[in-house]
This record gives sequence, C-alpha cells and structure tokens, in this order.
Amino acid sequence: MATVSRVVNNNPNVKPQTRKKVFEAIERLGYRPNAVARGLASKKTTTVGVVIPDISNSIFSEVARGIEDIANMYHYNIILCNADKKKEKEIRVINTLLEKQVDGLLFMGGAVTEDHIQAFKTSSVPVVLCATADEQRVIPSVDIDHEKAAFDAVNVLLQSGHTKIAMISGTLQDPANGYARYQGYRKALEAANIPIDEDYVRIGNYRYESGMDVTKHFLELDERPTAIFAATDEMAIGAIHSLQDSGLRVPEEMSVISVDNIRMASMVRPQLTTVAQPMYDIGAVAMRLLTKLMNKETKDASELTQVILPHEVIHRNSVAQRS
Amino acid sequence: MATVSRVVNNNPNVKPQTRKKVFEAIERLGYRPNAVARGLASKKTTTVGVVIPDISNSIFSEVARGIEDIANMYHYNIILCNADKKKEKEIRVINTLLEKQVDGLLFMGGAVTEDHIQAFKTSSVPVVLCATADEQRVIPSVDIDHEKAAFDAVNVLLQSGHTKIAMISGTLQDPANGYARYQGYRKALEAANIPIDEDYVRIGNYRYESGMDVTKHFLELDERPTAIFAATDEMAIGAIHSLQDSGLRVPEEMSVISVDNIRMASMVRPQLTTVAQPMYDIGAVAMRLLTKLMNKETKDASELTQVILPHEVIHRNSVAQRS
Repeated sequence: MATVSRVVNNNPNVKPQTRKKVFEAIERLGYRPNAVARGLASKKTTTVGVVIPDISNSIFSEVARGIEDIANMYHYNIILCNADKKKEKEIRVINTLLEKQVDGLLFMGGAVTEDHIQAFKTSSVPVVLCATADEQRVIPSVDIDHEKAAFDAVNVLLQSGHTKIAMISGTLQDPANGYARYQGYRKALEAANIPIDEDYVRIGNYRYESGMDVTKHFLELDERPTAIFAATDEMAIGAIHSLQDSGLRVPEEMSVISVDNIRMASMVRPQLTTVAQPMYDIGAVAMRLLTKLMNKETKDASELTQVILPHEVIHRNSVAQRS
Repeated sequence: MATVSRVVNNNPNVKPQTRKKVFEAIERLGYRPNAVARGLASKKTTTVGVVIPDISNSIFSEVARGIEDIANMYHYNIILCNADKKKEKEIRVINTLLEKQVDGLLFMGGAVTEDHIQAFKTSSVPVVLCATADEQRVIPSVDIDHEKAAFDAVNVLLQSGHTKIAMISGTLQDPANGYARYQGYRKALEAANIPIDEDYVRIGNYRYESGMDVTKHFLELDERPTAIFAATDEMAIGAIHSLQDSGLRVPEEMSVISVDNIRMASMVRPQLTTVAQPMYDIGAVAMRLLTKLMNKETKDASELTQVILPHEVIHRNSVAQRS
C-alpha cells in the first residue's frame, strides 16, 4: 500500500525494479489510485453505471429492462448517463461514472472508437458492451451478429421475388448498426448474383425523418426499387409513411423490412416485418456477465466475454411477393 | 496519497515540481479524482440526479434533452435512475442518488405520494418535480395545468360538433396524468351541459395496448361514441389503430384527440391532434430552477417554485367535424 502510494506519487525513494513491478501489478489488476482510496473506504458501492449514447433510441429502454431485472436479482443499483450521441460527452460520462465509484460499467449500443477503448482499458472496474461491440473484440460484449441479421432480412425480400432492393443504411463509421448491416445487405445481393446499384443505397441518421427523406429519393429514381431494407426499424417506419404519403400501398406496391423489432414496429399499419434483436436478453446477459466479472467468478474471462445472441425474423405485414 | 490529494485539491503547499510529477502520474495512470472524496472536500459534486419513474415513457427522453442542455450550460453532470414505475424502487433510487452525494435531484413525471414527499423533505439537497407535481404543492415543480389541457382537448371535440365523447383515462391515483386530466374531461362536458356517461369512461395503463383494448370496449357499446379523448398520446395511438383494425376510418368515422405531443404523435397516420406539453421547456426550466435552488440564488424560494408552463393545441389530422 505504502509502496504503491510512493510509486504513484513518483517518490524517488523507490527502486526502479520495484516501480516496474508495481506498474505491472497495476496493469494486470487494473489497480488504480482511486481504487486505493476506495480500498481505504473498504466498501463496495453495489452500483453499476450504464452509459446510453442516445436516450431517444427506442432500443435502450427495452435493453434497460433486462439490465434492471438482473441488477435487482444481484442487489445492484443502476445509474444511467445519457451522452446524446456526442463522442466527447460519452467519454466524459464514462469518466463521471468511474469517479462515482461504480463497481462496473455497461456501455449501450453505439459506435465504439479508439478513444472509447482507451477509456475502457484504463477503467478500474469491469466494462461490458451491450448491443454493440468494438471491431477488435477486446472489450467484453453481448450483441447479435448484425451482418447476419441484415443478410437474413434481405433474404426475406429476395425470397419474395424482389431483385431491385434499396437500402437505407446507417453511417458506415458505426461498426454494428451501420457498417455490419450494410455488409449483410451487400453479401445477400452478391449471393443472389445481383450487382450493387449505387443509387439504391443512401445513408440515414437512424431517425424517422431521415427514413422519410431517403425514401423520397428512391421514389424519384427512373428505375424505382420494389423493396426497401432499412438498417433500423425507426427509419423503416419513416419509409412506410413516406410511401403512404406518396399514395403508394405498403406492401402491395413496395415492401419494407428492417432490423431491431422495437415496440413501435407493431404500432404502425401495416405492422413492420423485421429481424428481432433479443433486446431484453441482451440487457440481462450483459448484466449477468458484468456481475461475473465484478465478482471474479470467471477464471478465464477472455473466452466467455464475447457473447453473440441469436436473432429471429418476425413476419408481419410489410413484405409482399413482388407483383 | 496525501500529496495526490493536496495536488488534486489545489493545496498551495505543494512544490511546483511535485505538482508536475503528480499530474504526469495522473495522466499516465488515468487517475480519476475520487468524486465522493472531492465532494466531501469542496461540498460540491457538480452532479444532479434525475429519477425517471418509467423509462419506457416516451415523454422522458424529450424532457431529458431540456435538462441536459441547461445542465451542460451550468457544468453539471446528470445521472439518471429508472424506477420502473414501482413506488418502493422510486424511494430506493432517490436514496441511492442522495447517498451518491448529488447536489440536487429532479423527479420526473410520475405519481407523487406521501412517501415520496417524506423522502424529498428529508433530502439535504434541493429537489424539483419535473412534468408532475404533488397535490399539496409543497415541493418545487415545473409542470403544465393538466386539467386545463384536458379541458381544452375535449373542447376541440365539442367545437367539432361531437357530444358522444368517450375517455380513455389514466389511473385516478395519479394526480397529474390521471385524476387532473379526468377532471378536465368532466368539466368540459359539464360546461357544455352534457351529462357524464359511465360507459364512456374506461381506465387504461398509459400503454398502447391498453388504448387498443379500451377502444374495443367502446366499439361494443349499443350507442357508440363519435369521438375519443385519450389521457395520453400513446393510448390515443392505440385507439387509432384499434379503430382502423376494426375497419373504421379516422377521423371520418371516429375522431381521436389526446394530451402530450410525444414524437410518435406525428409518426402515425392520420397524424394525431393533441395538446402539447412543452417538454423540452419543462426539462430546461426545471433544471434552471434547480440550479437556482442549489446556488441559493432565490431569496424567497416558495413564490418562484411552482412553475406552470403553457400548453397548446396542435391541430393535425385525427379530429373531424361530426358527420
């Protein structure tokens, strides 16, 4: 304890060899000065911090339910921080939560950049990504296979005879909801020997309004698509209403499918056919994984910490056979 | 440890050279000042706790935006706690937040019971109610006049010639969204000399599905209403879809109006006519009021602390003249 303190304080009366050992221990154990302070207080906070990149994202309240149920079961309190989709703010709230001495951290469904990974790596408490993952898979995560989910969605359209399939994509900088889902679209078309038409792919910002705007663009094309794959439900619902506002019938004149299965997907007419993420399960499994890491229940963390949960096509009323 | 503490707390009795070394160590190790310890020293954590009774309530994300913007302006961090609509849990998270030494507390939009008031009264930091109020008006609050908002909504139907107006109410134990909005309905009909018909009032649970269920009940009545007033938008959207699923046209065959103006109100066809709560403003004003109370800017708190913001009828496409 005293030695660690001297090292942290750069006290010159520490042998270089000792200093090296201490830093190695710090590295290995995630041992940190504020952990020392907490050690002095000798108390667990039994609180878990949850970072929500975007509070208006409909997915998070359903994932949160799964998190809360398991947290209750293990007697943890949850505190949420919203970062309003701004990266600097995400990093800031991660640090705020760690300052508040939470016992663990969940980061929910957003892009995971190098800066995020740096903040997570220097965290003294376990971190689990929830409904997202970092590209290198170095941070424990619970997620679906976004590429395969998108692939399966596009296949539903292909099997209904559609070949002119447009996509409302998320930003390709977002590895999960953006890039991976676009890759799924691309590979499904390739597997069916359909060339990618640049005019058929437009980037939205995940909001309802951008789904409407992109759909208007598709309707202005000389050769209109007969089906739209939206990367997320909210953009798909925008697409449906944009089509209806233009006097087109869904699905008779244009099919729409997406990925997510938010509550709103069945609160629209026609009800949306979509590929369901098991949102409650993602939250529950992520929270359970976090309790394991917090209580050091897992011997070899690395093998257990990349969890991929199964997705499922939910057939409703927004996809029809190509006429 | 003591030196780090002196440096972090800007104690002047630290040599510049030492200070530099400590900061280098902090930088290298990702040292996060212990917010609780710092809070004890400075008596401020610059953190505000927000209690959300129901995370799936669409209103809260829009109120939260107003809270966040003002919090950023005044350099406060926000931590949210969801209580999942359970009273015991609400009380528990209030206590958790107070233990975490927040500088102030916002309680967002839910029923305020005697137990809540007791917890708020024993709080050492200021508390502001946000989009709700206690019946006795002893706790500072920022809200709309729910009774008048409901009164105005029902008046829109009356002015369109409707006299058979049913209501999907919230629970009457909820003073704001439940009881007050029901009173507004009752008084609007009384003012128009229309007797209250017991068959025309049913209690929902604020969810989309309960809006659908209650509407089915109205459709089975021998003397059907020609218009429905729902206490909240989400139940109104359920009503619209229930009517459409039964083959009725909205608004030609049945008008629907409500109170709230959540984002989803314009994400439905026909778009919902509703009485808007100024949700962003409620959040922003509540947070500003809280900063005033935290910084003791207000001399006479009692006069300034019951804020009623104006509501507004938003005419969209779900109300038509009675045919």
